[in-house]
Amino acid sequence: MTYLSKLVCVFSIFLVGNWAMGAGGKVSQKISDQNVVMAVHAGLGIEKSEMTPAIEKQFREDIEKALQAGYAVYAKKGGSLDMVEAAVKVMEDAPEFNAGKGAVFTHDGRNELDASIMSGKDLSAGAVAEVTTIKNPIALARLVMEKSPHVLLVGSGAEQFGSEVGVEIVDPSYFRTEQRYKEWQQMLKEEEKAKTGPRKSSLPPYHTWGTVGAVALDTSGDLAAGTSTGGMTNKRYGRVGDSPIIGAGTYAENGVAAISCTGHGEFFIRYAVAHDIISLMKYKGLSVQKAADEVLLGKLKKVGGEGGAIALDSHGRVAMPYNSEAMTRGYITKDGKTHIFLYEK
Amino acid sequence: MTYLSKLVCVFSIFLVGNWAMGAGGKVSQKISDQNVVMAVHAGLGIEKSEMTPAIEKQFREDIEKALQAGYAVYAKKGGSLDMVEAAVKVMEDAPEFNAGKGAVFTHDGRNELDASIMSGKDLSAGAVAEVTTIKNPIALARLVMEKSPHVLLVGSGAEQFGSEVGVEIVDPSYFRTEQRYKEWQQMLKEEEKAKTGPRKSSLPPYHTWGTVGAVALDTSGDLAAGTSTGGMTNKRYGRVGDSPIIGAGTYAENGVAAISCTGHGEFFIRYAVAHDIISLMKYKGLSVQKAADEVLLGKLKKVGGEGGAIALDSHGRVAMPYNSEAMTRGYITKDGKTHIFLYEK
Repeated sequence: MTYLSKLVCVFSIFLVGNWAMGAGGKVSQKISDQNVVMAVHAGLGIEKSEMTPAIEKQFREDIEKALQAGYAVYAKKGGSLDMVEAAVKVMEDAPEFNAGKGAVFTHDGRNELDASIMSGKDLSAGAVAEVTTIKNPIALARLVMEKSPHVLLVGSGAEQFGSEVGVEIVDPSYFRTEQRYKEWQQMLKEEEKAKTGPRKSSLPPYHTWGTVGAVALDTSGDLAAGTSTGGMTNKRYGRVGDSPIIGAGTYAENGVAAISCTGHGEFFIRYAVAHDIISLMKYKGLSVQKAADEVLLGKLKKVGGEGGAIALDSHGRVAMPYNSEAMTRGYITKDGKTHIFLYEK
Repeated sequence: MTYLSKLVCVFSIFLVGNWAMGAGGKVSQKISDQNVVMAVHAGLGIEKSEMTPAIEKQFREDIEKALQAGYAVYAKKGGSLDMVEAAVKVMEDAPEFNAGKGAVFTHDGRNELDASIMSGKDLSAGAVAEVTTIKNPIALARLVMEKSPHVLLVGSGAEQFGSEVGVEIVDPSYFRTEQRYKEWQQMLKEEEKAKTGPRKSSLPPYHTWGTVGAVALDTSGDLAAGTSTGGMTNKRYGRVGDSPIIGAGTYAENGVAAISCTGHGEFFIRYAVAHDIISLMKYKGLSVQKAADEVLLGKLKKVGGEGGAIALDSHGRVAMPYNSEAMTRGYITKDGKTHIFLYEK
């Protein structure tokens, strides 16, 4: 072997190695990851010790259904916004997840819902916060984007807008599930025991970071992202997390990536997580995996900001890092194959 | 002259030229700009054709007072958060500006206030939206940051938190000024004439983009930013703009910059303006002037996103670009000298 051919050989190994390892240098990155058309998440899940085969089966079925709902739109050459809305609606309707039906309870015993959606094509966006009567908050976020000159509508004003534009309205009791009610009651008890005052600069003794979200890339190359949540169990004082905040919980920009986050919302707002991943890709040239890892496994982990993100770039490469025990998530490739994960890193 | 000495000479001229032109390449950038300890803005002001000497005098006096309030804190080696809060309070109390007293009216005839504050030291942040009884929303945003585990509190929940932590509460009528009331009445009439329906995907026929904000750099090198607003005249449906959104209207990060924005909030949310300026500096190595110009005079101007920003970097360099007719703004240097601008670019 000549020196030159050795060099070519080493270089080829380097190239192939990089490709097989994926853009983020992770061995788990598979070839199929390059053809992803949609990814979804349903929050940080539940601790492995509390997981049962029945719950796990249900989670996997819900994620499969969400991915298939988005893929059905994709297969008909539908737009990425429609893909995101379809997938998020499935997860909002699933009582297992903390969004739409099955949302957690506030300190006052209400289910308050937040959601946002963004189009990578023109950076248009819509979001709602603290709605209590909108069956699918993601649908209202979409209507805010398309039928109003605004981005973020809050509370009863958002609901008034919703009723004017004909979104599906339900009685607040629709969102109630016994599981969430029990969790809230348990938390109230623990709070009473711990005498955790509202002014204390720390989090309640128990919390759930469930949130659902989807990112999609359609056949036209348009990216979109959406996120929906019931927020934090026992939340007070009109607390709003990162899910309805464009730049924090959701961002999409054609040619770069679409991002949806889940986790301890205050950290995601302060670190402008979704926009930071986008910026690291745009301005520093990082791959979607490296950018998402740097924010989730680097910056946030360092300060104790628990959470994860799904990020899909304009080439169909997906990254789904999280710094907690689990994240319920999955993706679907061009050929319609789904890949679903709960605890696997 | 030898070839080498000629080269050194040309290079020296290049260096000095760059220095005199400031980081952003603007001739208006003066040497004193390198020693700025605080900058403030009071929104996009009013059209030159409507300006009177009396209003201009009042605007200049208010800005001077705000800068001096922040400087008094600086001179005693106080922190940048205290500087920002002191300056913003002065502008909230000034009935001329659309924040605190003098806020614009919503469609329902209310004065709804939003504010946010952020510390560059640890990226802690606090924000409130849609409060109607808090005399100084910036003070409540600060309390959310320091006395709660949350970042963003909305509506009556935020007010309840405020009363528990002892913030100054006023009757909603405190915020009313005749000038703003007249503007609102005028707008209602114009809207009736134009039959602009609420569902139309465009803005109301008349709007004001007044907002106040401050950015500061203290003697310890800590940056902070804060923004406060009454929002958009005749706003409906619980619309929230960029001022209480960390990453959109406000951002601060030590070693980089502190940013406060004013303008058409929806664009500032969609473009994550404050965080984008920070990202261009951090990841692309742009100067504060170039980064702020790229976002305000480049991206936003291109899509018709009217507005401006004040940005102060960790070396005391300030940039205050805006793409509208005017922006009421000023800065103060280490030696206590103030520089106030209304229409001058």
